[in-house]
Amino acid sequence: MNDASHLHAPKGRPPASRSADRRESILLCAVRLFAEQGEAATTIAQISETAGVTPAMVHYYFKSRAGLLDAVAQECILPLAKSVWGSVDAELGDPVEAVCAWAGRILEATQRLPELPRLWAREFLAGSGALRDRVVPAMVPVESHRRLIEAVARAQQEGRMNPGIDPVLLMPTVIAMVMCPLAAQGLLEKVPTVRRIDRQTLARHVRAFLLAGLASRQ
Amino acid sequence: MNDASHLHAPKGRPPASRSADRRESILLCAVRLFAEQGEAATTIAQISETAGVTPAMVHYYFKSRAGLLDAVAQECILPLAKSVWGSVDAELGDPVEAVCAWAGRILEATQRLPELPRLWAREFLAGSGALRDRVVPAMVPVESHRRLIEAVARAQQEGRMNPGIDPVLLMPTVIAMVMCPLAAQGLLEKVPTVRRIDRQTLARHVRAFLLAGLASRQ
Repeated sequence: MNDASHLHAPKGRPPASRSADRRESILLCAVRLFAEQGEAATTIAQISETAGVTPAMVHYYFKSRAGLLDAVAQECILPLAKSVWGSVDAELGDPVEAVCAWAGRILEATQRLPELPRLWAREFLAGSGALRDRVVPAMVPVESHRRLIEAVARAQQEGRMNPGIDPVLLMPTVIAMVMCPLAAQGLLEKVPTVRRIDRQTLARHVRAFLLAGLASRQ
Repeated sequence: MNDASHLHAPKGRPPASRSADRRESILLCAVRLFAEQGEAATTIAQISETAGVTPAMVHYYFKSRAGLLDAVAQECILPLAKSVWGSVDAELGDPVEAVCAWAGRILEATQRLPELPRLWAREFLAGSGALRDRVVPAMVPVESHRRLIEAVARAQQEGRMNPGIDPVLLMPTVIAMVMCPLAAQGLLEKVPTVRRIDRQTLARHVRAFLLAGLASRQ
């Protein structure tokens, strides 16, 4: 797309590129406010003010609050879930490495959307409500998770994985290990023995923990 | 105390035992509502209604909202933190076992106060606000945590613990492993491959994960 295309745009409505940017900016402001103060406590007026547009503009792009929430779920969150789960099926020949790679992709998702850990903690983990209802069924692809559980259980039976691990609890455990320290950064800053969570340190820590924790001790 | 003592109580104000019960019941209703809908979204009117008392009674016992929050922090939450951290110093001769025992005591604390995981997720992990400010500095006793970090680092240098673990991140990791699955029960119920989190299974899973994940591989 030509950088100067907006100079030649027809009058009356924003040119496509600026329009897409503005829509994207509204979505990202919504995500940021939802992560900071919760979806239920966030008004369209706050979102439009943060994005520097009028409330009417939010309605122009998303029709309604429900439309905005649909867009946040479908465009901001579920593509990340897809990228996290996408290749796990192909990796199950080595379940320990599959889980490590899966954890690494969760960490990558938090890099692409830095609000994700707080949004997850606030809206999905403890929360209830409109955004969670839109995201939860699709966030864990059941068939992929079932195959992961089966692969872990099989590897345990074959003596290739720590038999004490619960295959079902493995997913919540790994998500917790990656997401909690990032979601809790504001909290941990106040703890003198922790202070700053460094993303690379977290990645190494989680991988080392998983490699040893999941391996069989033979 | 005599079970029938309230029969002989002087008129005019509730007898001590009933009064203590009522105060306790208000506190527990406050904790439950804070865990369900957040502290900021909970009114004194909701708390008094749930506890079956008048708003004036809440003010009689706690003077103000601030007094109620102080009592929730001091009487419901911080004693649990104390029980979790209490004996960790004495156990540091075997840091792997010390961390396992510490994780076990977090799980016990969630049994004594079943609302704790959701309260933690909602108010402390992602949240901000009045309750968190009252709890956070005291929730992690800095000197105990510092000695735990040092004991882990020393055990790593001596080849007795997994050298890839980050000693500082160990605390947030263990809290996350225990608390998240319990906080997320409402969420995980909707995931067909998970459904119910069983406390005993979680205890075994966390212990097995920690024993293998923290041990040196020699």
